Amino acid sequence: MSGVGTEVWGVCLLTLCFASFHVTALKPQLFTIRGGGLPSSSDPPISYKTSYFDQKIDHFGFLEDGTFKQRYLTADQHWQRPGGPILFYTGNEGDVTWFCNNTGFMWEVAEELGAMLVFAEHRYYGESLPFGPDSFSDSKRLNYLTSEQALADFAVLIQSLKKTLPGAERSPVIAVGGSYGGMLSAWFRMKYPNVVVGALAASAPIWQFPGMVPCGDFYKVVTQDFAKSGFNCDTNIRESWKAINNVSSTAPGLQWLSEEFSLCAPLKNKMEVAAFKGWLQETWVNLAMVDYPYPANFLQPLPRWPIQVVCKSLSFDSPVSDYQLLHGVSQAVKVYYNFTGGASCLNTSQTATGSLGVLGWFYQACTEMVMPMCSDGVQDMFEPEEWNFQAFSDECSSMFGVRPRADWAATLYGGKDIASHSNIIFSNGGLDPWSAGGVTQNLSDSLVSIMIPDGAHHLDLRYSNDLDPPSVRAARALEVQYFRQWIRQAEKTR
Amino acid sequence: MSGVGTEVWGVCLLTLCFASFHVTALKPQLFTIRGGGLPSSSDPPISYKTSYFDQKIDHFGFLEDGTFKQRYLTADQHWQRPGGPILFYTGNEGDVTWFCNNTGFMWEVAEELGAMLVFAEHRYYGESLPFGPDSFSDSKRLNYLTSEQALADFAVLIQSLKKTLPGAERSPVIAVGGSYGGMLSAWFRMKYPNVVVGALAASAPIWQFPGMVPCGDFYKVVTQDFAKSGFNCDTNIRESWKAINNVSSTAPGLQWLSEEFSLCAPLKNKMEVAAFKGWLQETWVNLAMVDYPYPANFLQPLPRWPIQVVCKSLSFDSPVSDYQLLHGVSQAVKVYYNFTGGASCLNTSQTATGSLGVLGWFYQACTEMVMPMCSDGVQDMFEPEEWNFQAFSDECSSMFGVRPRADWAATLYGGKDIASHSNIIFSNGGLDPWSAGGVTQNLSDSLVSIMIPDGAHHLDLRYSNDLDPPSVRAARALEVQYFRQWIRQAEKTR
Repeated sequence: MSGVGTEVWGVCLLTLCFASFHVTALKPQLFTIRGGGLPSSSDPPISYKTSYFDQKIDHFGFLEDGTFKQRYLTADQHWQRPGGPILFYTGNEGDVTWFCNNTGFMWEVAEELGAMLVFAEHRYYGESLPFGPDSFSDSKRLNYLTSEQALADFAVLIQSLKKTLPGAERSPVIAVGGSYGGMLSAWFRMKYPNVVVGALAASAPIWQFPGMVPCGDFYKVVTQDFAKSGFNCDTNIRESWKAINNVSSTAPGLQWLSEEFSLCAPLKNKMEVAAFKGWLQETWVNLAMVDYPYPANFLQPLPRWPIQVVCKSLSFDSPVSDYQLLHGVSQAVKVYYNFTGGASCLNTSQTATGSLGVLGWFYQACTEMVMPMCSDGVQDMFEPEEWNFQAFSDECSSMFGVRPRADWAATLYGGKDIASHSNIIFSNGGLDPWSAGGVTQNLSDSLVSIMIPDGAHHLDLRYSNDLDPPSVRAARALEVQYFRQWIRQAEKTR
Repeated sequence: MSGVGTEVWGVCLLTLCFASFHVTALKPQLFTIRGGGLPSSSDPPISYKTSYFDQKIDHFGFLEDGTFKQRYLTADQHWQRPGGPILFYTGNEGDVTWFCNNTGFMWEVAEELGAMLVFAEHRYYGESLPFGPDSFSDSKRLNYLTSEQALADFAVLIQSLKKTLPGAERSPVIAVGGSYGGMLSAWFRMKYPNVVVGALAASAPIWQFPGMVPCGDFYKVVTQDFAKSGFNCDTNIRESWKAINNVSSTAPGLQWLSEEFSLCAPLKNKMEVAAFKGWLQETWVNLAMVDYPYPANFLQPLPRWPIQVVCKSLSFDSPVSDYQLLHGVSQAVKVYYNFTGGASCLNTSQTATGSLGVLGWFYQACTEMVMPMCSDGVQDMFEPEEWNFQAFSDECSSMFGVRPRADWAATLYGGKDIASHSNIIFSNGGLDPWSAGGVTQNLSDSLVSIMIPDGAHHLDLRYSNDLDPPSVRAARALEVQYFRQWIRQAEKTR
């Protein structure tokens, strides 16, 4: 990383930043499936209004008094005004239209609750850029990219809507979010219970912070998904790293590897092989996150239960030759990247495309969102890798000129000591690696956990589907029950 | 104010700033009795250790990574370690040793609770200056003076003490504060319930913000105190403003007025007369705040029930001549400023001396702490004066280069919608004008109000005294009961 330092500004290609993280293996794990989130052709058409709100750039200091345009989407077709509830999506690290299109649950319950829907974009993502195209140009401009500022944006926006939108003044607002957006939902209810009467935090790893859960649990869940999806599937992936090292140690081996995986850019050196392994690792993680029970259309379409399909190419008895093993891996990977057979080659920087979101998330990981991850190659199927905070911090310093504060999130958001809060649903999927950092047991009568054993990453927030397992149907029904309860509570006290 | 503008920096004398606020009658009402807080000679001697903690200058951004020395005082003579509770004073707008010396309640209950005491200084006050003597030199350096930063300081300090202080790891921490410090205590429990198990917010006007209580209530309480402390006392003060206007309209009158009040600096013009009236008004307010049932030693000693003593000079039948009336006023004022007869003259800028605290508080009033005050001269004894936010904002802009955000405190701290929080005692004195903006009714089983009808400003936090009314004795006993309950709760869940 040395030498990238300050020059990274303005010329930093996302792929370069990403690769640099890969090289030192200090990549922050991303929540969003990159490029993902496009609506499926089978999803019902939705209609919303796009608006922009003048939001303070800095809520926590008064010197910077400028504003920026925060984008938000609204849909009031089913809203029973005055006073009908508002479901408010606390946008996460990406274009808010993705989340709007991929949170079918909200669209489906709007009618039965007589609710208005609001999807608010997170600052520094999508179109909500505090300094326009320069928002990422230096650490001074990036300084307002924090979860606290984002929560304040949501709070100020809601208070304004309640004042200005006819019929909204007494509407109870419920926060909804998935993944990092789910963390924001939960934190939003904790910090602004005056603004939202409750929160649904779907697949929200609010405990994936230092000292709260073992750093290896995340990759253990990924491994379990593969272990139960096909004979020897996890074992063969575990063996594949050494096979890659062996094969890539010679020039002909490198060439074979590049051809076997149909890589668009052939591998040339050890650094690129390390990046290639990082790309594979991320592919397995992504598959675990989207291991849905029905075909889903992300960047490219995936079959139902994609890990089972992937594992068909990896279900052989070891030992096999390195070449046989890696042929299986390449077949498996192509399920993810080339299910329809339309890709002429595989681009290992592909996972990093899509939006500024990646750079924004890296900055957040380098400041507040310190989420330790590690692997040991025994309880998981990955190469052993310790969590090295100092190295991570150094990398952040050279990349953004900031250092992460490891304990801040715990102090600010309560860590494991959150039982005094109320009205939060933590839903988690048993297949989702992020469940490792989630709240998977009830903490009180009104801080409840809903487990979806057959669910991947926030399956409950997606459109319902004939192939949905009963567990997610039950989860959604229970979530709506809690919504109704919170709405009744709010009606009593207003 | 025009022309003061940016030149105010560095050369701003507190008295000038103060006077400038007076001139436009946009002074923010101060909580702290200026120069007050010295321990009384009758108070028991206390012993504490002074320490300094390296605190982040900015908790809410990562660009500014510098630290400053936050002062805090500790006393562990009675601490039952390990695990004994910690009473944590959330320091307000002044030198923390003042609050340490004037919160006898904490010293008195330490033994019976086996508690350690911690008094944490608020950033930008006392010795806890983020940029040393330059902390007030420009709006860039003042940018980190907010209540959110102060609360984060407290949270980070406590988390550090728990980690590093042998025996403190499992100690339940209770926040205690009076006045603005009480607001901080309440907000601290609301925002960081993971850090403190409960809070005693004494005389904390958390509702003295726009739209929450009528802006005239504060001065009504002051007026009531005078009305019930002597015949015609409030009426004569109400009449005095016109008398001052009449008398000061001629040069001989101005001279007479200056001599009658033994002013150190004779009044020369209309602007100075306006400032003089502001000084009088503040004197009446301060008397209401310190209307204690026993002699108390502030900057100068005061008799017990000082308003009764003051009113002896003002208890005559109107109409009297302007000169007779103002003679009564001057005698009354001298009770406050010259009870022992040692002052050779009265300094109308005296209330503004003492510490940087005044400037810091003005900045806070000009940003977050927007506390509307108004008077009508009918329901109160002051000159009619509307609350004019725009004029106030303009003044702030010219003085500090910042504009207040009128709605921010309500959004951030919940306004009147705080019932979902828990474990906060709001104690208020019936004589205290700040009770007008306080929580004076129970909001839930664990958000309780304790009223002390005969109490002035946070009397309950002071040392007990033989002359204490039964209501404050009962209040303190109840407060300790709640402390014990919170400690038991914490023991159950840890």
